[in-house]
Amino acid sequence: MHFRDRPIKEIGEFALIEHIVEVLGASARGAGQGVIRGIGDDAAVLQQAPGLRLLAACDMLVEGRHFDLAYFTPQQVGWKALAVNLSDIAAMGGRPRWAMVSLALRPDLTVGFVEDFYLGMVELAEKYGVIIVGGDTCSSPDGLVIDVSILGEISRHAVAYRSGAHPEDLLLVTGFLGQAAAGLASFQAEFPLSVAGVEGLRRAHLSPEPRVREAFALIRSGLVGAMNDISDGLASELHEIVQASGCGARIWANRLPIDQATAAMAGRLQVDPLHWALYGGEDFELLFTVPGGKGLPLKLKNLTRAVQRATGTPVRVIGKMNHQVGEVTLVHPDERIEPLAPAGYNHFKDR
Amino acid sequence: MHFRDRPIKEIGEFALIEHIVEVLGASARGAGQGVIRGIGDDAAVLQQAPGLRLLAACDMLVEGRHFDLAYFTPQQVGWKALAVNLSDIAAMGGRPRWAMVSLALRPDLTVGFVEDFYLGMVELAEKYGVIIVGGDTCSSPDGLVIDVSILGEISRHAVAYRSGAHPEDLLLVTGFLGQAAAGLASFQAEFPLSVAGVEGLRRAHLSPEPRVREAFALIRSGLVGAMNDISDGLASELHEIVQASGCGARIWANRLPIDQATAAMAGRLQVDPLHWALYGGEDFELLFTVPGGKGLPLKLKNLTRAVQRATGTPVRVIGKMNHQVGEVTLVHPDERIEPLAPAGYNHFKDR
Repeated sequence: MHFRDRPIKEIGEFALIEHIVEVLGASARGAGQGVIRGIGDDAAVLQQAPGLRLLAACDMLVEGRHFDLAYFTPQQVGWKALAVNLSDIAAMGGRPRWAMVSLALRPDLTVGFVEDFYLGMVELAEKYGVIIVGGDTCSSPDGLVIDVSILGEISRHAVAYRSGAHPEDLLLVTGFLGQAAAGLASFQAEFPLSVAGVEGLRRAHLSPEPRVREAFALIRSGLVGAMNDISDGLASELHEIVQASGCGARIWANRLPIDQATAAMAGRLQVDPLHWALYGGEDFELLFTVPGGKGLPLKLKNLTRAVQRATGTPVRVIGKMNHQVGEVTLVHPDERIEPLAPAGYNHFKDR
Repeated sequence: MHFRDRPIKEIGEFALIEHIVEVLGASARGAGQGVIRGIGDDAAVLQQAPGLRLLAACDMLVEGRHFDLAYFTPQQVGWKALAVNLSDIAAMGGRPRWAMVSLALRPDLTVGFVEDFYLGMVELAEKYGVIIVGGDTCSSPDGLVIDVSILGEISRHAVAYRSGAHPEDLLLVTGFLGQAAAGLASFQAEFPLSVAGVEGLRRAHLSPEPRVREAFALIRSGLVGAMNDISDGLASELHEIVQASGCGARIWANRLPIDQATAAMAGRLQVDPLHWALYGGEDFELLFTVPGGKGLPLKLKNLTRAVQRATGTPVRVIGKMNHQVGEVTLVHPDERIEPLAPAGYNHFKDR
């Protein structure tokens, strides 16, 4: 079958995006038209004011794919629709400023639903000083579809691209991994679960906290090389960094921060928590690199302490960049080394 | 029934948006946070670079509501999804620069469909020097949903708000009215139609030309007061100008530019073409005001000639602003004067 004739569910999200970028050609690159970085990072980097960079990103949430109204309140949907966008700006090191909200609404939804949706969104917007400056509202014959676009800014020299990693850099992550997947699994479980800390896991799925303040603290340290959020899962996002930076990475399984509640939930559901940590997706944590070399232990200690003090969020070294271009490997506790595929969250897979 | 409990299809798009703005409160106004104008115009006006304004808008297209793949090619959907956004930037007088595209795709759509969609969009993007800098691609269980957000820029003093009209200003419009509605009606007709010029009418519905160049020429004249595009229909958009500017307006039915093909199509379908011109919507023409007073005839002549020479698009005086705050009236050829309701395109009405 000719590539053009294949249904998109067969080829997957990433191959489709790659193909779109090819089709777009010069229209996506846009050299010399104020585009510092177009498609291919957490946010586009644009030039308007001298010394400043404008950051722009958008993220769509589709009912039945990204959220289920059986366990999301309208407030949580509103919160999350903005949170995933704030995370994109945080992943560049930037300050989120303005958001626009497009809604395709089922006509049977009530005014109260829409009101609560916005109240949830506004709660998060106010927390980070973001203003909702526009949008579009229309009706959808079927499910609810939300698209939020976000604008942020950052000083010219502070932008953290995913291409900023080098061999010998250390690889770090904020917070904990696999929580969102564990929270989602707790909703989907076929039997009632009583696991200590389940509420925190569910919150990670329903109303995640974007790492905006953590990103500020990291950028302020001047130590960050590459940075991504790990919305598509650690393995997938690490591959993005490795590809963009032209190096490789090795991570250690026993260094991945998995909290007790996630481990307990995995135990109850007989799932390997490592799988959630690597491939679960929707953990809106930051994955970033810090240059190795002289004085590193002290610098790392200061960085970790600065982020912890400013935000309460732990930061942990999980691996190291190397010269094996394009390769990501996982070291198991028994020293076994496994190549790690970029398999992450794929929106077109049949589920 | 409490307002909160009412389904949104009962209260309509405009009442819902008004309610949302109330809910958003300070989060929508954002005084002193770089927001010059938030919700309530064709685009948000934001401050990043000194002397420059950033313009931002987004528009969503939903399969089965805004377009029907029975008569739209994928290229035309791509073109139109960007065109409606370029029109928002044009309506502020600005230069469109960067676009982001979010797509919720039915998994049965082919790679070729998505490719053609982008080819149609790129064709229009290149025509106006717009770069596609990002987006999101996910799957939709049901119809195709497209949300495009657009960023543009304009020098600080050139922004054409809808609030810039004054009593005694003349009211003008570019191009022709009712063409898009006539084109859509030709597809929906239950019998085959042979009307001269039907292809042009259909083009107005399928792949409208945003009035970007016309807006440049108008802004360059220095004469424009208020400006809107008339995507929601002339009556509705004129009410927006009247409300925002705190004045009234009177238009003359026999001055509304309705072309022969539209009139012929209306005749064949036994519809009043005036209805399409006033309420049809999706005419991406510009509605704007020019100050009355001394030297006006010469100024108008120069303006009309400048736009026509630069773009080939005619410009026509259709009415006059007055002191009757909030009132819009239509003068029929027999001198009968009718108050004009803002009824336009309402996305939640049962259709």
